[in-house]
Amino acid sequence: MAPINRRKLVSTFAVLPLASRAFVSSAKAQGSPGQPLASWNEGPAKQAILDFVHATTDRNGSKFVPPEQRIATFDQDGTLWVEHPMYTQVVYCLERVPAVVAQKPELKNREPFKTVLSGNREAMAKLSLHDLEDILAATLTGMSVEAFEAEANKWIATAKHPRWNRLYTELTYQPMQEVLQYFRDNGFRTYIVTGGGQDFVRIYSQQVYGIPPEQVVGTAGGTKYGYDKNGKPFLTKEPKLLLNDNNAGKPEGIHLEIGRRPCAAFGNSTGDREMLEYTGAGAGARLMMLVLHDDAQREYAYGPAEELPDSKVGTFTQALYDEAKRDGWTVVSMKDDWKRIFAFD
Amino acid sequence: MAPINRRKLVSTFAVLPLASRAFVSSAKAQGSPGQPLASWNEGPAKQAILDFVHATTDRNGSKFVPPEQRIATFDQDGTLWVEHPMYTQVVYCLERVPAVVAQKPELKNREPFKTVLSGNREAMAKLSLHDLEDILAATLTGMSVEAFEAEANKWIATAKHPRWNRLYTELTYQPMQEVLQYFRDNGFRTYIVTGGGQDFVRIYSQQVYGIPPEQVVGTAGGTKYGYDKNGKPFLTKEPKLLLNDNNAGKPEGIHLEIGRRPCAAFGNSTGDREMLEYTGAGAGARLMMLVLHDDAQREYAYGPAEELPDSKVGTFTQALYDEAKRDGWTVVSMKDDWKRIFAFD
Repeated sequence: MAPINRRKLVSTFAVLPLASRAFVSSAKAQGSPGQPLASWNEGPAKQAILDFVHATTDRNGSKFVPPEQRIATFDQDGTLWVEHPMYTQVVYCLERVPAVVAQKPELKNREPFKTVLSGNREAMAKLSLHDLEDILAATLTGMSVEAFEAEANKWIATAKHPRWNRLYTELTYQPMQEVLQYFRDNGFRTYIVTGGGQDFVRIYSQQVYGIPPEQVVGTAGGTKYGYDKNGKPFLTKEPKLLLNDNNAGKPEGIHLEIGRRPCAAFGNSTGDREMLEYTGAGAGARLMMLVLHDDAQREYAYGPAEELPDSKVGTFTQALYDEAKRDGWTVVSMKDDWKRIFAFD
Repeated sequence: MAPINRRKLVSTFAVLPLASRAFVSSAKAQGSPGQPLASWNEGPAKQAILDFVHATTDRNGSKFVPPEQRIATFDQDGTLWVEHPMYTQVVYCLERVPAVVAQKPELKNREPFKTVLSGNREAMAKLSLHDLEDILAATLTGMSVEAFEAEANKWIATAKHPRWNRLYTELTYQPMQEVLQYFRDNGFRTYIVTGGGQDFVRIYSQQVYGIPPEQVVGTAGGTKYGYDKNGKPFLTKEPKLLLNDNNAGKPEGIHLEIGRRPCAAFGNSTGDREMLEYTGAGAGARLMMLVLHDDAQREYAYGPAEELPDSKVGTFTQALYDEAKRDGWTVVSMKDDWKRIFAFD
């Protein structure tokens, strides 16, 4: 995930349904049916994955990697699931504003909450990044870890993406689910390394990706230990940033929470650049991949080749593309390399 | 591990050998021979461990815990290995001072480095906590992660404890090694949650305890991503504290790096109090244990019952003992509950 992009935020207000809640049973991570990478077309991207896994698991080969060192890291937004028109977690935060204001009425007439409550999308579109940070702080901190988990759990089980009218959790990329499964089937531990909130992603990572919470590294705030009136201890989510898990923060977060360098890393934007560089700088077999969003019909197109309208500018820049080519990273074309995008396709 | 205790630091200078280096092959974690907890005497402490594991792994029982939720956390210093007369990592830092000064000659005549270099133990005994922090910062930060790992690895392979003239890595408690193994044999993941430096403990945790680096949570500083002159990326250890993994920092660190509440937790001091409280506040079967150092002959005695000389004051206070009794935590008497302390006994 790239740093929060105001233009993405802006564009979202144009398409967000005012009420998108309807209970649908949650999506589950799908394994690969029969053979690995079944949703991948034959080609250099699929072959690079197969070759890497064969090389690192062949005990007699020169590139064998012992199981305990088999770490693969995956960005989430735009790499494992849809990130357009807005990061799912930002949608969550905006939709939480009415409940937060109900608990803290003093926010009702204060900006940026007043604007969000107004539902005036033109005004919302003018919110600054600073405004957005205020909204994230108000909706993600100041409550116990358990209270946050309960709220976010409830939301993620019902919230839908406006374009597909499906749960966000259904909008994971089936070919990437197959990569996760294929890696795990070959003794790799799969980690999510996301610019999104660590606490948020951990809530659904097992159910959606088969990745347990302890294998999610993300943007993380501090917590504060305290006691309730009965003396029972609990942790409160604090508005104090410990790890901004974007860009250089990704290798820093990997060192902090994993303590090993990955052998393979997957991303889709400049926010993943340092993670792929750091992965590539290790010894032995390496696999670095970037998902290129070049399929406007089945998903979105916002790669470097497209001249996109301002509202859809992504962060897969030409410079990133050039670095990928120079350093032997594999660029995955969603249009050409993937037979289907979603499990429901 | 408790917060750095200046009195422990002081006492150490009296016993630290000036040169304690001699290469000896490194100790390895020892499994339990034949039956679980072979080095434990029969009694309530051993029984509490057996009962907990039986209850949580019995599929037909009411206290069954699914494997993915089986998390057990262990303090290190004083719980898994000897912490007296000084934390091993502090010994490392003091012994690193000459090498650091050789690289930065401007420190030679600056305090506290001048005093450490002098070897004058009386003067060293007067160093303040602030002085010690300067020493930790100078010896643990400002170098690449790889450079630190190489140095610490070299040291831990040869450094010896003055009392036993054995590698520090041999001074793990055999009964606790058996607990680690017994938990893992029953599907638990064992984590170290230490006030010691996360990067330091991760270097030897696999070899010494069978615990991989990603299952070590400890006091952690930030790192900074950058590039060397050839454009190769690397992380530099920064003198910026991200997580003080003592006291309330333990549950906070557990939430940050694991994201699940442990079912079982082991400690030995007030620095572990909040971790045990937090563990105890969860639903279902729980096991909280405190190792009481009451065996002056085979190890050290610094529990609440002893009136110890100032130089050996530990942090197992009477208040902690009272809380343990009140909340049903098990206090392990090293003297009574352990047949032997070390693998070499």
